[in-house]
Amino acid sequence: MSNKIRLGIVGYGNLGKGIENNIKYNEDMELVAIFTRRDPKSLNTESNVRSVSEIVEYKDKIDVMILCGGSHSDLPKQTPSIASMFNTVDSYDNHSNIPEYFEAVDSVANSSNTTSLISIGWDPGLFSLNRLLFQSILPQGSNYTFWGKGVSQGHSQVLRAIEGVKHGVQYTLPIKEALDSIRAGNAPVLEPYERHRRVCYIVSNDDSLNKEIEKNIKSIPGYFKEYDTEVNFITEEEFIREHSSMPHGGSVLHSGRTSKDITHTMEFKLDLAHNPEFTSSILLAYARACHRLSKENSFGAYTIFDIPIGYLSPDSDYDIRKKLL
Amino acid sequence: MSNKIRLGIVGYGNLGKGIENNIKYNEDMELVAIFTRRDPKSLNTESNVRSVSEIVEYKDKIDVMILCGGSHSDLPKQTPSIASMFNTVDSYDNHSNIPEYFEAVDSVANSSNTTSLISIGWDPGLFSLNRLLFQSILPQGSNYTFWGKGVSQGHSQVLRAIEGVKHGVQYTLPIKEALDSIRAGNAPVLEPYERHRRVCYIVSNDDSLNKEIEKNIKSIPGYFKEYDTEVNFITEEEFIREHSSMPHGGSVLHSGRTSKDITHTMEFKLDLAHNPEFTSSILLAYARACHRLSKENSFGAYTIFDIPIGYLSPDSDYDIRKKLL
Repeated sequence: MSNKIRLGIVGYGNLGKGIENNIKYNEDMELVAIFTRRDPKSLNTESNVRSVSEIVEYKDKIDVMILCGGSHSDLPKQTPSIASMFNTVDSYDNHSNIPEYFEAVDSVANSSNTTSLISIGWDPGLFSLNRLLFQSILPQGSNYTFWGKGVSQGHSQVLRAIEGVKHGVQYTLPIKEALDSIRAGNAPVLEPYERHRRVCYIVSNDDSLNKEIEKNIKSIPGYFKEYDTEVNFITEEEFIREHSSMPHGGSVLHSGRTSKDITHTMEFKLDLAHNPEFTSSILLAYARACHRLSKENSFGAYTIFDIPIGYLSPDSDYDIRKKLL
Repeated sequence: MSNKIRLGIVGYGNLGKGIENNIKYNEDMELVAIFTRRDPKSLNTESNVRSVSEIVEYKDKIDVMILCGGSHSDLPKQTPSIASMFNTVDSYDNHSNIPEYFEAVDSVANSSNTTSLISIGWDPGLFSLNRLLFQSILPQGSNYTFWGKGVSQGHSQVLRAIEGVKHGVQYTLPIKEALDSIRAGNAPVLEPYERHRRVCYIVSNDDSLNKEIEKNIKSIPGYFKEYDTEVNFITEEEFIREHSSMPHGGSVLHSGRTSKDITHTMEFKLDLAHNPEFTSSILLAYARACHRLSKENSFGAYTIFDIPIGYLSPDSDYDIRKKLL
């Protein structure tokens, strides 16, 4: 009998595909099944695909279920339901609703003797972890989060809702002067538009609309108006060729002092070639932690703040002390 | 009665002074006493100073004892002895002896119902934590640690042992081209001397010896011979003016892939104006975790790998989920 951690995937979008792809790098894990709401035969994969309606049949065959649905409409219903049967890991990313989401999942998991790790990823996730770490170490300090270069889904959706826009994508970019000033320990006070600029690529339905589209974009408050916003019109061919990858990343920076004129800076930085594949790697490492917590009878909901980093490793506590400390 | 975490400091060198200085930034902590092997009256401080021989009298007056002795001769004896009476946090940094040290402290702490956090700092410490985090997330990858710009105590001691050297200090500097190549995702294979260079400042007893001293330095294998080593001779006045501060820092970098041609890089970077004051800040945050573990009856020895980051914060689990996740 295999001693591997038996995983299930719920949802087969970019994230679910990333999990399926990355399992091969973790020799202590195996994929048992992918669950989908679509026709299982319609998925282009060699993995075992099942209808999500069959999930209950896998109750004793899967150690951890990785939930890859969307935060807006899927996870708030799906997670409590699945957590009543399985240990779960998800990447719920609706920051402002996390407290309620946590309570809902915690309640089910506690009464079902299951373990659920919520909001795992890089933001929320690794970035949150470093914000907390940095503030705890240098409480007398200033904390900054920068995103990019990367695609903002929310801003891209706003672009695509503008009349005359056929395709649109928006990249958020950190402003280099702001980053340099923080790294130099100056602890500047910065408005959002002093930290990031926005670069848009648009395919319009008709070139004669371009001036009007650009004017409309730059007048949308909250999203573009306050920012240094650049609008580029390109062909559909170029759009597909140049803007289909999913890079992202960013930095959490903290500058704090311990004495007059003694200022330290700390930085955690990600440069990601493919956002969903990287997020999948994080979810897999935390699936290992979820499995270990469950075996220790630590039930209920947990966030990234609650998990010792040692729980992410396939190696023994003795080995990591010896090799990595 | 105060609800603050009551702290003691054992040893009043640079680290002990840093702890004393930084406690004021943590409103949930108070310093009860500093313990020294010297004459308590000889310490230049307004804090309560006691002889280390009186430490047992503080058994119920101190929640966590922060051990600021040296790793070579102090901590291996001191920590087990003090851990039999108190919860402890230390910055034991002799990497190769950590497994034995852990076992010795763990045994005492378990039988005494105390909690001991060992090897807390930035390397070992935060750097170790990120090495483990990065490898767990991207197991298909290469991990690098760079130090500097900062003073290497070991190399400086080697300089000062050379005949004719009155004062000597050695700075370790990362080689920028190596850092850039890793950050670009190239995952180069690098020898130690391809990652760091060494810059020495020497005050010699007699200028006529300088050529011989430089030749001697550059011929020492392991320390200088293989490296790009720069030797500068300066006056005693300049040495005291320019080389008395204690900057340090460095980076842990990891470059790993999730698919062919899909490479991500992760980096954790510190830029420290004063090494002991920064290390003290880390020890204080982990003293909070030590206190919490002890209140939960989690006894024995722990390393940075075992501690949830949430335990470092003075805020409640609910608040950190709401504000920082």
